[in-house]
Amino acid sequence: MTAARALVLEKKMELSLREIDLPLDVGPGKVKIAVHTVGVCGSDVHYYTHGKIGPFVVEKPMVLGHEAAGTVTEVGAGVTHLKVGDRVCMEPGVPDPNSRASQLGLYNVDPAVTFWATPPDHGCLTPHVVHPAQYTFRLPDNVSFAEGAMVEPFAVGLQAASKAHIQPGDLGVVIGAGPIGTMVALAALAGGCAQVIVADLMQEKLDIAARYSGIVPVNIREEPLVDAVNRISEGWGADVVFEASGAPKAFETLMQLPRPGGRCVLVGMPVDPVPFDVSAAAVREISFATVFRYAHQYPRAIAMFASGKVDLKPLITETFGFEQSIAAFERAAEGRPADVKLQIRME
Amino acid sequence: MTAARALVLEKKMELSLREIDLPLDVGPGKVKIAVHTVGVCGSDVHYYTHGKIGPFVVEKPMVLGHEAAGTVTEVGAGVTHLKVGDRVCMEPGVPDPNSRASQLGLYNVDPAVTFWATPPDHGCLTPHVVHPAQYTFRLPDNVSFAEGAMVEPFAVGLQAASKAHIQPGDLGVVIGAGPIGTMVALAALAGGCAQVIVADLMQEKLDIAARYSGIVPVNIREEPLVDAVNRISEGWGADVVFEASGAPKAFETLMQLPRPGGRCVLVGMPVDPVPFDVSAAAVREISFATVFRYAHQYPRAIAMFASGKVDLKPLITETFGFEQSIAAFERAAEGRPADVKLQIRME
Amino acid sequence: MTAARALVLEKKMELSLREIDLPLDVGPGKVKIAVHTVGVCGSDVHYYTHGKIGPFVVEKPMVLGHEAAGTVTEVGAGVTHLKVGDRVCMEPGVPDPNSRASQLGLYNVDPAVTFWATPPDHGCLTPHVVHPAQYTFRLPDNVSFAEGAMVEPFAVGLQAASKAHIQPGDLGVVIGAGPIGTMVALAALAGGCAQVIVADLMQEKLDIAARYSGIVPVNIREEPLVDAVNRISEGWGADVVFEASGAPKAFETLMQLPRPGGRCVLVGMPVDPVPFDVSAAAVREISFATVFRYAHQYPRAIAMFASGKVDLKPLITETFGFEQSIAAFERAAEGRPADVKLQIRME
Amino acid sequence: MTAARALVLEKKMELSLREIDLPLDVGPGKVKIAVHTVGVCGSDVHYYTHGKIGPFVVEKPMVLGHEAAGTVTEVGAGVTHLKVGDRVCMEPGVPDPNSRASQLGLYNVDPAVTFWATPPDHGCLTPHVVHPAQYTFRLPDNVSFAEGAMVEPFAVGLQAASKAHIQPGDLGVVIGAGPIGTMVALAALAGGCAQVIVADLMQEKLDIAARYSGIVPVNIREEPLVDAVNRISEGWGADVVFEASGAPKAFETLMQLPRPGGRCVLVGMPVDPVPFDVSAAAVREISFATVFRYAHQYPRAIAMFASGKVDLKPLITETFGFEQSIAAFERAAEGRPADVKLQIRME
Repeated sequence: MTAARALVLEKKMELSLREIDLPLDVGPGKVKIAVHTVGVCGSDVHYYTHGKIGPFVVEKPMVLGHEAAGTVTEVGAGVTHLKVGDRVCMEPGVPDPNSRASQLGLYNVDPAVTFWATPPDHGCLTPHVVHPAQYTFRLPDNVSFAEGAMVEPFAVGLQAASKAHIQPGDLGVVIGAGPIGTMVALAALAGGCAQVIVADLMQEKLDIAARYSGIVPVNIREEPLVDAVNRISEGWGADVVFEASGAPKAFETLMQLPRPGGRCVLVGMPVDPVPFDVSAAAVREISFATVFRYAHQYPRAIAMFASGKVDLKPLITETFGFEQSIAAFERAAEGRPADVKLQIRME
Repeated sequence: MTAARALVLEKKMELSLREIDLPLDVGPGKVKIAVHTVGVCGSDVHYYTHGKIGPFVVEKPMVLGHEAAGTVTEVGAGVTHLKVGDRVCMEPGVPDPNSRASQLGLYNVDPAVTFWATPPDHGCLTPHVVHPAQYTFRLPDNVSFAEGAMVEPFAVGLQAASKAHIQPGDLGVVIGAGPIGTMVALAALAGGCAQVIVADLMQEKLDIAARYSGIVPVNIREEPLVDAVNRISEGWGADVVFEASGAPKAFETLMQLPRPGGRCVLVGMPVDPVPFDVSAAAVREISFATVFRYAHQYPRAIAMFASGKVDLKPLITETFGFEQSIAAFERAAEGRPADVKLQIRME
Repeated sequence: MTAARALVLEKKMELSLREIDLPLDVGPGKVKIAVHTVGVCGSDVHYYTHGKIGPFVVEKPMVLGHEAAGTVTEVGAGVTHLKVGDRVCMEPGVPDPNSRASQLGLYNVDPAVTFWATPPDHGCLTPHVVHPAQYTFRLPDNVSFAEGAMVEPFAVGLQAASKAHIQPGDLGVVIGAGPIGTMVALAALAGGCAQVIVADLMQEKLDIAARYSGIVPVNIREEPLVDAVNRISEGWGADVVFEASGAPKAFETLMQLPRPGGRCVLVGMPVDPVPFDVSAAAVREISFATVFRYAHQYPRAIAMFASGKVDLKPLITETFGFEQSIAAFERAAEGRPADVKLQIRME
Repeated sequence: MTAARALVLEKKMELSLREIDLPLDVGPGKVKIAVHTVGVCGSDVHYYTHGKIGPFVVEKPMVLGHEAAGTVTEVGAGVTHLKVGDRVCMEPGVPDPNSRASQLGLYNVDPAVTFWATPPDHGCLTPHVVHPAQYTFRLPDNVSFAEGAMVEPFAVGLQAASKAHIQPGDLGVVIGAGPIGTMVALAALAGGCAQVIVADLMQEKLDIAARYSGIVPVNIREEPLVDAVNRISEGWGADVVFEASGAPKAFETLMQLPRPGGRCVLVGMPVDPVPFDVSAAAVREISFATVFRYAHQYPRAIAMFASGKVDLKPLITETFGFEQSIAAFERAAEGRPADVKLQIRME
């Protein structure tokens, strides 16, 4: 263990920028990375404001941060695809490669997975991290560190898009225009949708999403979403619907949005069980997918950034220095609608 | 219209065996069939006892019955694959072949579909019916009329099995050992499951299902289903889970039954929305299918009966004459656990 | 039958612009369309230069043309979704809606399908056509007639993309940069690929394709395609490979292009059987799809044009008047590399 | 390395039963197994008679055998799911768990995989082997060692069945009634086919396969397979077709066997490229899968044996003692049609 400066969540509502002991030895198959940029995610903020997410409770000081990019500074034994100086981003979840879920290719649902800034595991808001090379991905020259730190949230969007089984030219709907909803909408467009209706109550959020071509904003204060979907689809319904609000109310009309044979992807995580109308879903034979983080999406996200297919830079709305980390979290906790993604630059 | 004797549901709880005007002209593309055997389905009984199912309300006298087999007695213009004397069974739902859903192959979810014994459409408990040849299927010599009338309920099971995306050797679970649950379990076995756990509270129903090799009965009064699934799957979970009870309580533990990446098919139709734990489903990335009747399953059911892969004859527990139809419905309304399928023989 | 002026292929290498009897009565479910724009397709040209394509032989005079857009001038009984004045494009293949293939949603492989300008059926290079309303699609205001006539070739690309089961962020390869290869590449990009390598021997064709962002041209005179794919994929291989050249030589190295578990879509139609290395494919468990025209793609293509996701206008390289139709075909028969799509404007 | 008695292929056509140095140390994550039964596979025999299979050449003495069951005698550090005394069977291929293919769940196509009795790796025809616990599977009490040694060849059948995407009630066709063809046919039946047509030239092989209910033998000396498929499917074609002969001649009519939209699985491994009629396949939009060994199939095969769904005991046609191993291979090399599976019992 090595003492290193880090942004530490001491307990609910208490952050420190201080030294803490971290495991920084570079074992076989691992690399050491000088962290350059870390994004502030809603889950980091939720641990700060609530001290827990579902069953995960912060019981001792924990370093925050899990959306990161940086530069390789040391390479462990057996690592062949990375070298010192490589610019990289890191997938924060690391499974047991020999588990049954991992063997099936479903490593994200391996119960043994460890994940940055998920109790009891530390995150990456510290100048150096050591990480398995297998979960560390080289950034092409035309992908910046700031974009590299956006790979993680976009991977969430891609996982949802992937589970939607999009056919080229589908009409998509995303309920919720927060950061995750926006990621999902952009991933759905990049993944084949001809257009994606994004629904929210807050016009400011919709305006940001609507800057992207192919996104059709619907302010549900002004028009019920069912009406908008029927208007745009000429009464047929949407091919794929992403529930990204987590609001129980969204489930009241969810079954009226997809076309016969359509598909819903449930991305939002309601705290409690929601009312689910099986019979209404059955009449259209709607199918449903759920998503948990992501698997196999990092190379895909990076490829999309590199080819110019997806440009998330306009969503990085403000950048703080490492020494301003606490201010960054306080700002994030305000939940300003125009703050899509705040990032912290370590240097 | 031609007057014909039929079992008529006059209104809730009132049945008559009497003459009623029915459309018996054989137009182009249609065939006339002398009905031989008709099964009594839970939905027929529900219309009898409740006068409605969901939005479908019996507002005028309606002939009951939709599980039928018989013999072709007349062939309309343009029909090429059937001839007088063919032994057949009939698919009770007829869509608009030019609708958008039908064009996609999803004819069962075509809003324009008409379906025997679903208000306002008459059923087939009458000596003759006229039906589109396209939805009339020839029975091989080794499939009896009684089995022919079982094609309809087994098609429900096959639709569920088909939506489960079974991989050969999967472990299945069916919640509910009623007639539909049993059909689903047998379809899942025939469709590739190595074994299927069937769960119910009533031992008598379980005993009937358990006569089939590959079915593992679990009386949930004696062992919680989650425990049984974990015991049999060594803690991994089931590959596919069919909810065939329609009981809201089943949804309380549903998410704990599938393995990581597993799949649920919701066959039962709860009257009201059920509590649905999205987060618990997401942790395992469970996906869900719903089913509405069936599409493209008649030839598949017939092929399975003909090859001997599936034998439903043991489930036909009693046969009534046409003149005893009312008695048959009264008996069915009792809901005796050992009465899996009652049939009415027209001759 | 009504006499109408049309571009008639009298026999191999002989075209006339003359009157011919055509069926122009507007029956139930049909619409009459004033044709505005017709694209010249390679298959039209092939009938002109060879008098046949595979089993389809021109045995009597046949009107050419199957890529068309126009304006509805008359509406038959029972048509509800179209009205006089609607700007539309027409799907040239019409199946039997009651065939087994159509019932399954596979109407393009219905043996009973009729298709414009495929012997013995006339095409649409004539001022008016009568067509089933079900296969006539309204164009949004922001989609021009010229684009409407591009829906047909783009539907070919979409069918291929759809069969590729693209995952968002896939690396694609298209062998052959002719008009179809280019359509496939653009459909694959629109359908989710992060980038698509397009391979050809002719730099001029590659230059045209490479104007689109996301397309990586590879001149296989300069670098073997296998080397290029390995270079770009860091030795892993492509996720999806489209064979769009029809050249037997392409099959010699085809199996080395996909990644383990990858997929090939065979779009090109070699005249004779090609050498196929099953063992080389098996080592990577490559799967293969074939495509025949398209099904269900017209609304998808139109949606992509309307949303701005796909812009094919730069590929319409020259437009001829109807009276210059023969000149248009002579020019097309030259096969100039820079002539991606020639169109004929009827007015 | 420890000296142990083993059946050694010295070089082409030369077998010895002698001592050879084998790695028998039980490292972490490994188990030691007393081998009980080993099946003789066609590939073992091919190495014996030809000294190579494709690129795999026997360049130094190699122990044969890869279809094995036995009893755990020692358990390495970290192994939790197995204990001394467990009856087990072993999956002969072991991948790098951290490779890109393994991470995706495609461990069978990991280029780094090692496989018993595939040069340069030794097989299991020796009294003890050491094997990774992750690829060692416990046998239920009602599955014998002899059946345990049949899991490997049946896994080949299951992999093919799995790639066929069988829908419950499909009509299957298997070309070739050798041991692999028979495994494929039984796996296809167990995996959901209503019936499976098995085609061969040798009546003796067909008679063995036809003992199983659901298998329809076709002797192609007496009736062309295309005719038989059309007869049985009433002209529609088969849903899934398995090419398990590896004979180039089979590809001449292969495209005429599947129904429109049907699927072929190429299981046989022709030595050279075969003639492949893309256009004939395209007219029906046939898709093709290839298979390489298997992945994730061992638990599925074991579950099917344990539930009684599949009974391969009748196919074990003769059992030899370990000291008769050479005689067993000489007999296998004769290729008698009635010898489906020869096994060697070690004790």
